[in-house]
Amino acid sequence: MKRKQYETAMAPMREQLVAMARWARVTGQRIVVLFEGRDTAGKGGAIRAVSEKLNPRQCHIVALAKPTEAEQTQWYFQRYVQHLPSAGEIVLFDRSWYNRAGVEKVMGYAEDPQVSRFLEQAPQFERMLVDDGILLFKYWLTTDQARQEERLRERLDDPLKRWKLSPVDLAARERYDAYTEAREAMLAATHSDWAPWTLVDFNDQKRGRLTLVRDMLDRLPNTEVPPPQIDFPPLGRQPRAERYSVLQPIANFPLG
Amino acid sequence: MKRKQYETAMAPMREQLVAMARWARVTGQRIVVLFEGRDTAGKGGAIRAVSEKLNPRQCHIVALAKPTEAEQTQWYFQRYVQHLPSAGEIVLFDRSWYNRAGVEKVMGYAEDPQVSRFLEQAPQFERMLVDDGILLFKYWLTTDQARQEERLRERLDDPLKRWKLSPVDLAARERYDAYTEAREAMLAATHSDWAPWTLVDFNDQKRGRLTLVRDMLDRLPNTEVPPPQIDFPPLGRQPRAERYSVLQPIANFPLG
Amino acid sequence: MKRKQYETAMAPMREQLVAMARWARVTGQRIVVLFEGRDTAGKGGAIRAVSEKLNPRQCHIVALAKPTEAEQTQWYFQRYVQHLPSAGEIVLFDRSWYNRAGVEKVMGYAEDPQVSRFLEQAPQFERMLVDDGILLFKYWLTTDQARQEERLRERLDDPLKRWKLSPVDLAARERYDAYTEAREAMLAATHSDWAPWTLVDFNDQKRGRLTLVRDMLDRLPNTEVPPPQIDFPPLGRQPRAERYSVLQPIANFPLG
Amino acid sequence: MKRKQYETAMAPMREQLVAMARWARVTGQRIVVLFEGRDTAGKGGAIRAVSEKLNPRQCHIVALAKPTEAEQTQWYFQRYVQHLPSAGEIVLFDRSWYNRAGVEKVMGYAEDPQVSRFLEQAPQFERMLVDDGILLFKYWLTTDQARQEERLRERLDDPLKRWKLSPVDLAARERYDAYTEAREAMLAATHSDWAPWTLVDFNDQKRGRLTLVRDMLDRLPNTEVPPPQIDFPPLGRQPRAERYSVLQPIANFPLG
Repeated sequence: MKRKQYETAMAPMREQLVAMARWARVTGQRIVVLFEGRDTAGKGGAIRAVSEKLNPRQCHIVALAKPTEAEQTQWYFQRYVQHLPSAGEIVLFDRSWYNRAGVEKVMGYAEDPQVSRFLEQAPQFERMLVDDGILLFKYWLTTDQARQEERLRERLDDPLKRWKLSPVDLAARERYDAYTEAREAMLAATHSDWAPWTLVDFNDQKRGRLTLVRDMLDRLPNTEVPPPQIDFPPLGRQPRAERYSVLQPIANFPLG
Repeated sequence: MKRKQYETAMAPMREQLVAMARWARVTGQRIVVLFEGRDTAGKGGAIRAVSEKLNPRQCHIVALAKPTEAEQTQWYFQRYVQHLPSAGEIVLFDRSWYNRAGVEKVMGYAEDPQVSRFLEQAPQFERMLVDDGILLFKYWLTTDQARQEERLRERLDDPLKRWKLSPVDLAARERYDAYTEAREAMLAATHSDWAPWTLVDFNDQKRGRLTLVRDMLDRLPNTEVPPPQIDFPPLGRQPRAERYSVLQPIANFPLG
Repeated sequence: MKRKQYETAMAPMREQLVAMARWARVTGQRIVVLFEGRDTAGKGGAIRAVSEKLNPRQCHIVALAKPTEAEQTQWYFQRYVQHLPSAGEIVLFDRSWYNRAGVEKVMGYAEDPQVSRFLEQAPQFERMLVDDGILLFKYWLTTDQARQEERLRERLDDPLKRWKLSPVDLAARERYDAYTEAREAMLAATHSDWAPWTLVDFNDQKRGRLTLVRDMLDRLPNTEVPPPQIDFPPLGRQPRAERYSVLQPIANFPLG
Repeated sequence: MKRKQYETAMAPMREQLVAMARWARVTGQRIVVLFEGRDTAGKGGAIRAVSEKLNPRQCHIVALAKPTEAEQTQWYFQRYVQHLPSAGEIVLFDRSWYNRAGVEKVMGYAEDPQVSRFLEQAPQFERMLVDDGILLFKYWLTTDQARQEERLRERLDDPLKRWKLSPVDLAARERYDAYTEAREAMLAATHSDWAPWTLVDFNDQKRGRLTLVRDMLDRLPNTEVPPPQIDFPPLGRQPRAERYSVLQPIANFPLG
């Protein structure tokens, strides 16, 4: 998809996302969105598409580091729970509790009974959140291996993306099928009436972002809340220029 | 400044920021950057310019909500301290402990002795962080009132920016001079050898971002660390396409 | 019950509690004990009986203050979850999530649907903890109103206990029956196979403590783990006395 | 010192501690007490002497576990700062930031430059807390090696105290002199006008507790605040006995 086409399609949705945030703030809604999917699928970009115009004091992105030794011995959901939203907040999880059913299972970081227990508890846990009134969205971003290969290669070659390439990614590459299987087991166990999964095709990432955002917006109730009236009278004097007594600004970046 | 000119100038700096992050990770450096400045100056955009290509698991943006009642009675720096970096982390503060010398002073949220105590303690506090080896950058983004007026007006008119306009902003408008005075008092008290302030002219926000990032990069030591060698052998089979048994992806966003 | 009789009976149990703690440490067990019951029933004393000989770095007492405004809008269990134990830890809750079914219900701090939802979720929540391997004990300390009246009167008269007497206690006094009803509803909803309640008669507090501790110990599996062998050779020199160069100890408290 | 003598002397101080807590609550004072000293000196008992009659929701005991890997790379004071009190709170540190100048130095867990930096920063850090209005008490409990030997031996033999005996304790035993030296260096660097150390002789632990508590109380300003008037009318009916419909209390502990 061309950038221009993308921008044209995204523009109105940006406004709708901002309206969603206002609605959440005014009505005290709590919104949680999970972004899961294959390495290179485009989770980061999708999160940026949702968050870029929102107030970072309202919309939090949660990208947890690997668990500490102590955390590894706690109830599995414990370290995620503390990031759940208060009234008016939007929380975007860049990977989430579903790590256990994906990378941890495939790479052997979790043992089979831990994975089974997770698959049993996840729907119950989510049920509690949803019953409590949290709006929970679960997106899984799909991508064919041909695309994944291209993107891994790009990460290797592009210095801006090199950090995204870890030995785990390369292992993932050889376990494309194992990841598929793990995902299907996960969907079978955790796609519920109260917290359904939504699969979005991210072979074309721009289009995938449009699809995801459109879906999320369409599933919200009416979010129309008029912005507060703000009185903006003329300034009534000449606007001041900056004045400095202690320190001057540094020289501006030179114009080519 | 034109977008194209901006992109051309920013491109190499993006790579240098990524190199900085790798260097921090490998050498265990801790980096803290404070973004302060007038409302509408462009703090959010500057933070995005620094962070956009970095790993969100490494580069944290801290945008604290207003303090709770309990926090208001604690040692002032307490709620900021818990966000300071561990080895290898980069923390960008979207407003910082300097709130006390700015908005809190001008709007009367803090009492004079609290502000005085802050101005005394801030350099000592920062001294401890710097002596501990933290790399601390303090940027103050300046903007003339004429630009500020334009941008406030834009916030009023642009639905994407409307949320940025709060009654406090409008009060700030009438107190442009009081903010100038507060800033000068703050600079006089807290511009130190170990933690100097850098003022950056953000009348042109794109140019301001370039100026700020260039300055920060130039003040770092040599950050060259080669990326780890990664062996990327051919896949050795046909790449697989996604296969779905439980759930299908939803329909793609329609192409115009 | 006489103090001497109490001490004689408690002495062996103190050793068993210490053994329990060693066992938890060595085997990585996690133990959670909830102490609930009427005002004045003796929760604090019971907690002390369990914890007094244990390592405070292992055995944590959690006595949460009333929720902040933000916490009040979160998933109800959120602020409790962050205190759940890591491997080897023992957590004693001085009041717990059951506040919602007790004081919050009776005093009207929570609305009926919130209470109902809590009664539904508590067993599910506990199920997840228990299935995760946490050893969960739930004690409710009972006391007749005649005893409660004596103890409230004592709080009024004894300067050491005066702080325990709050207006809420006095309101509770008039709602003894409402508390009974609330407790019975709570028991009906949350006494489960996996996380049963244990009611303990605390009309005699010393005896109540013995009953509670005995019950808890009896429900544990075999906790025998020999303490590590420690080699304690003779010191091999005259023991030193303290020597002071900078500062002297202050004068000792005068002997009558 | 005999128990009876101790009880007689402690009784009035218990009331004064309770009065102190009420005063702190009513006036919003924040109190921090550090308990440091040799292994076996009696820190735990001293903390219990201060806290036993206080509200655990007001008086917090902070006994931190050893730092995680990430914490080890943070600004040294960071993990302590988050436990500093809000208005009305009392925080008792069972070991404190002074670990770095004691066990960490003697056992080689911290490197020399880290210890030096700590000795430089501790007074500055404490200065900030004290200037912020926190009441800070620093107690170091002293004990001759002969007593320490007796107590270590007791820990070895008494099953209730066995857990207190760690290999680090035994190493400490052989480094009694090194600990003395470390303490003296610490006192020389951190005994300040604003945050003085108080050494208390704990060769007799009961007497040491009396000395410490007396000293702390004497250094407080007038803490007299009358307790709130509470209206305690007659109940006006027969007090109710407990009634059970769902579950009965378990059998009481048998009377010998």
